[in-house]
Amino acid sequence: MTDRPTIAVIGAGAVGGYYGARLAQHGHDVHLLLRSDYAIVRAAGLSVRSVDGDFALPPEQLHVYDDAAAMPPADLVIVTLKSTDNHQFPRLIPPLLKPGTAILTLQNGLGNEDELARLFGPKTVLGGMAFVCINRTAAGHIEHSDYGVIKLGEFTANESSRSPRVEQIAAMLRASNINAEALDDLKAGRWDKQVWNVPFNGLGALLDATTDVLLSTDAGVQQVRALMEEVIRAAAADGVTLPPDVAEKKITATRSMGRYRTSTQIDRQNGRPMEIDAIFARPVEIARRAGVTVPLMELLLFALTTLSAGASSASPFGRGSG
Amino acid sequence: MTDRPTIAVIGAGAVGGYYGARLAQHGHDVHLLLRSDYAIVRAAGLSVRSVDGDFALPPEQLHVYDDAAAMPPADLVIVTLKSTDNHQFPRLIPPLLKPGTAILTLQNGLGNEDELARLFGPKTVLGGMAFVCINRTAAGHIEHSDYGVIKLGEFTANESSRSPRVEQIAAMLRASNINAEALDDLKAGRWDKQVWNVPFNGLGALLDATTDVLLSTDAGVQQVRALMEEVIRAAAADGVTLPPDVAEKKITATRSMGRYRTSTQIDRQNGRPMEIDAIFARPVEIARRAGVTVPLMELLLFALTTLSAGASSASPFGRGSG
Repeated sequence: MTDRPTIAVIGAGAVGGYYGARLAQHGHDVHLLLRSDYAIVRAAGLSVRSVDGDFALPPEQLHVYDDAAAMPPADLVIVTLKSTDNHQFPRLIPPLLKPGTAILTLQNGLGNEDELARLFGPKTVLGGMAFVCINRTAAGHIEHSDYGVIKLGEFTANESSRSPRVEQIAAMLRASNINAEALDDLKAGRWDKQVWNVPFNGLGALLDATTDVLLSTDAGVQQVRALMEEVIRAAAADGVTLPPDVAEKKITATRSMGRYRTSTQIDRQNGRPMEIDAIFARPVEIARRAGVTVPLMELLLFALTTLSAGASSASPFGRGSG
Repeated sequence: MTDRPTIAVIGAGAVGGYYGARLAQHGHDVHLLLRSDYAIVRAAGLSVRSVDGDFALPPEQLHVYDDAAAMPPADLVIVTLKSTDNHQFPRLIPPLLKPGTAILTLQNGLGNEDELARLFGPKTVLGGMAFVCINRTAAGHIEHSDYGVIKLGEFTANESSRSPRVEQIAAMLRASNINAEALDDLKAGRWDKQVWNVPFNGLGALLDATTDVLLSTDAGVQQVRALMEEVIRAAAADGVTLPPDVAEKKITATRSMGRYRTSTQIDRQNGRPMEIDAIFARPVEIARRAGVTVPLMELLLFALTTLSAGASSASPFGRGSG
């Protein structure tokens, strides 16, 4: 990458908007592809409230687009689309490519890197997990309410998923006041995050329950732990050995998060598509292929799929079944 | 029992109202304890639409009460309270007892007979399962939309739960145009019904899905079957061996029921208490004590309990978690 790389953010919602804005705030050449908030952000800019410092970017300091074809080729493409929109990759990403472009997906779940690799070549692709709490409070308004870190690595990794490119991007993020770390093993990092996402996003959406509610009873802790253990088994079947205390550590860490709504709970509340494939279906499919039984994940997958099929009406009870 | 026994029906909602009305229609001395519909039924009587023939009972042909203390002692007490109201047994039932009174519970789930036996003596108690589709369409209006049978037996059974008393009650019901059978093994009958209730009442309430929706995908059939297999294992741990084809037979029979809403789905839709203890918690407790793991039933129990705790508002998404 050049000293002043061109950075494109595809799907600049809460997470993409925040990182794009931070990079722009620190002088980077950032180009944001927006959808629903395009007109407002183009007119009024972005306003960020953050535990790492509030700031605003007026429209004249932003490059915003509602059409990927109008964007310049980029050195780094950061993908923060919801994974339910991955079918748009073939339309959105090719206009941004040039020789040497790196594509970094910060999306939830499993399989996003694989999809990008199939379309644009595996060496193009990097993956990262954003362990943060960032919400869009209104059009053009972003709230970053909890500290966090982006852990990123190469999709094609031999000994380690760290590479000069990964280290360079991590350094660039850190220089823009974004906590970032190069990962030794992206695949292990993905499964590690799944250990959290499957129980909390799954049960949270199914029961409209925040993390504190799920952990408020012994029965809830038992269900969270049982789901985590299934994810750990699926990871092992996929060649990833997670630390023996990973489940307990995550449960303890989650208690300190307070009343947290996962993105999947928020999606269901708002009648938006839930990220069922990336967070639930793909890990279940990996477990099935490996002959590992994950009955609770199968039940969650069925339940969320059924709810999703009935979610066209505003209320989950609005389908008029009687 | 005498030739013209006094029959009390406790909790004369849809099921109790229907059977009470049928017995009264055929000349029996029936006394109905009602709650919410008392005033309307007292003023306007009961109106029944039934696949076995429509009929109406004017108020002067009915004995209705809103207070058990005002009712006469009975030869037969039919209990059709929702099991969530079992804590009212000590208040509602003693006024109806005399030497030789038989108490027949037609409630859902496990443990209702045990509770009655603890309070009023095991030899007093009979149990039955009503395999029917009966709904209250309005106050005083009952719709019996599908054929069905009451299977009943003694709570304390040695060789068989059939007894002269059970045969006599079954004959009385049949003489009143109610399909009824004496059961050889009440406990096996209870577990057999649980094989159906756990998946269909459980998933139906959790997902607001009718039986046809649950069986409309391979994944749904797989989940129903997996839950049935857990119930079969729990039954075995409780000493009941169900036939090997019980799950497949019930799935096949359910396909012919069309778009059926279980009582638990209806309860959740209407914000009423769900019968979680009788249908889910007690079988799980029996399995736990026997050391049998029933992870899917545990998850269902946790899920319904969590939804129930948040069900005070009208919408399942109305708790304002964000």
